[in-house]
This record gives sequence, C-alpha cells and structure tokens, in this order.
Amino acid sequence: ITLVDLMPHIRRVLAASGLRDGSVNIISRHTTTAITINEWESRLARDLKSWLLQLAPPDDRSVVGVAGRGEPINAHSHLACMLLGSSECVPCVGGELVLGQWQSVMLVDLDGPRARTVGIQCLG
Amino acid sequence: ITLVDLMPHIRRVLAASGLRDGSVNIISRHTTTAITINEWESRLARDLKSWLLQLAPPDDRSVVGVAGRGEPINAHSHLACMLLGSSECVPCVGGELVLGQWQSVMLVDLDGPRARTVGIQCLG
Amino acid sequence: ITLVDLMPHIRRVLAASGLRDGSVNIISRHTTTAITINEWESRLARDLKSWLLQLAPPDDRSVVGVAGRGEPINAHSHLACMLLGSSECVPCVGGELVLGQWQSVMLVDLDGPRARTVGIQCLG
Repeated sequence: ITLVDLMPHIRRVLAASGLRDGSVNIISRHTTTAITINEWESRLARDLKSWLLQLAPPDDRSVVGVAGRGEPINAHSHLACMLLGSSECVPCVGGELVLGQWQSVMLVDLDGPRARTVGIQCLG
Repeated sequence: ITLVDLMPHIRRVLAASGLRDGSVNIISRHTTTAITINEWESRLARDLKSWLLQLAPPDDRSVVGVAGRGEPINAHSHLACMLLGSSECVPCVGGELVLGQWQSVMLVDLDGPRARTVGIQCLG
Repeated sequence: ITLVDLMPHIRRVLAASGLRDGSVNIISRHTTTAITINEWESRLARDLKSWLLQLAPPDDRSVVGVAGRGEPINAHSHLACMLLGSSECVPCVGGELVLGQWQSVMLVDLDGPRARTVGIQCLG
C-alpha cells in the first residue's frame, strides 16, 4: 500500500484549465487504487496502511489464477478500494479549490506501487 | 446482498444524452443500496458480500419495528451502505467514460434483492 | 462523534441559487468530518457511532503531539473519515434533489462537536 499526494497534479491541471468556478472531479482508473481526501502526513499514512490491512487482510482473501486472464485477483486490495472509494468531487470557486487547510486529495495504491493513471477533470 | 452491473444502463443513458464532455453522476436513491466502482467479477462479488457481512454483521445491529412506520431498520445494511458510499462521479471525455479497463459502476443492494431505482445524470 | 443533518442547509443554498438542473456537490472541509448519505434517524445515528468506534477504535491509534503544530492527531477520526468519504454529488432535476424518501445528506463529525464548515456548491 502506497500513498501519492495528488495536489501538485491537481493544481497543475486546474491552472492549465483556467477554470474559475466549477468542479474538479478526481477518479481512480484502476480497481485497486482509491481516491481519498485527508491529511498528507507520514504517521497517518502508516496508520492508514495498517488499518486497511487489518480490515481487509491479504491472507484470507487473495484469489490466484483467474481463468482466461492469467493474473491474480488480490481481493483484499479490491475490498479496501471500495471502502475508500474511487472518486471525489472538489468544488472550485474563484480558481481556488474548496478544501480545508489540512485536506489533500490522495491516491491510495492498494496493490502497488505500480505505474498508475488518475483522471482529473475541471468542469465549469 | 446482491450486485447489479450498472454499465449497460449508464451507457444507454449516456448515449441518449449525446453528452461529449462532462460528468456522469450516479447516485443511489435508497438508504440500503450503495454505488461502488470495481471489477464486475463473480468471485469478487462473493468476497465483497462475505466481507461486508463480517464488517457489519446482521445479528448485533438489526433493529426491528420503528414506531409509526411498521418496517424494520436493518442497521447493518445502512452501515455497509455508508461504508461503500452513495454516489460516484465519472468524467466523460469525447463521449467516453474515463474508466479503466476493469472498472464497472455497480449497485450493491444491501437489503435485497428488491425493485430499486438509481439516479444517472449526464452533466456537461 | 456527532451527526448533523445538512438537508436544511442544502435546501436553503439550492433555493437561493435558483438551480433547476445540475448537481449539488457537498464537501467536508476538515480531515475529521465526513459527508455521508443515509437515514436521519436517532437509533441509526447511535449504531453508526458505535460501529465506527469499533472499526476504528480510539485507543490504539491516537497519536499525540505532532511536531511544529501542537495538536493531537486523532488517527481513528481520520480513518473513520476516509471510510465514510469527504464528498457526495447529488443530481438536481427541475429544482429537486434526486434523493430517495429516506435519504439525508449528513455531516459526521468524528472529532467534535466543534464549529465546522461544509462546502455546498450548486453547479448547472
């Protein structure tokens, strides 16, 4: 489980879009990555990882060898993904995201780290 | 607990709307159905069901007989609903949903199966 | 853990905006408050509180004294926040929210009660 701070990416996309008032939609494009909003802090990241592994433990859920695909399903990663959720919408007012001081949008990679893509859409 | 693949419905509504660039908002309209995005796969569905029943077990939470309404509150179904979430926003670019190869939007009926409605909105 | 029914606030903002067709985006602006949609009912509120405290118990996660900030991180509040999620999007059609009869948008304060702000955006 690895965490990525998406704020630099979101701010870059937002600035390039020129959006003043609207919504920034962030979506995971994988079934084992989630989007969450919380504090970007190393101790919390550690707590999040151990908590997710406790709520959705790898050992009793990992299914290996799906027919016709040849890759394992890491069921616990999928379950943790559904727990955290795949999309968040952040309102944008006057070019600024309506987020609190300690809030960061993060990608949680539940079966990585791997090369991943995230959808960031500025809509207004 | 039953799962419904919403993708055929979403694609139909999206095609009918003619939306090219915007957002498709999907919302549960019940307090015991949730919207989630993950892989539409029978083994994962089975894992999801047993995992939810484990995290929010029926036996110690079911409350029966709400005054003035005459129907049970299945608290565990409500809790699992809040765990999974009630809405997801999927960006749409060039008429295509920004979803990964294995992602499907699903309805999770936590107190069914019953006749249910889902809100699908194409906004752009 | 305290719950606040956001529906009166949302309806007021919606009415003031004059929005007919679009989306109402609701976002938490704190890392220990969450937005959820479910039934506004006192017994369910009680169940939700005890369930969250069970899934993310205070005792084994609370971290005190972050350097340079002088305030505790209540990790369990952050974790429960990520479980419930920080934003929801509710479609609005003809000036009416596309919510079911028993659904209410709620703020869940996981480290309160305190003075809190919520972002409510009418977009269309």
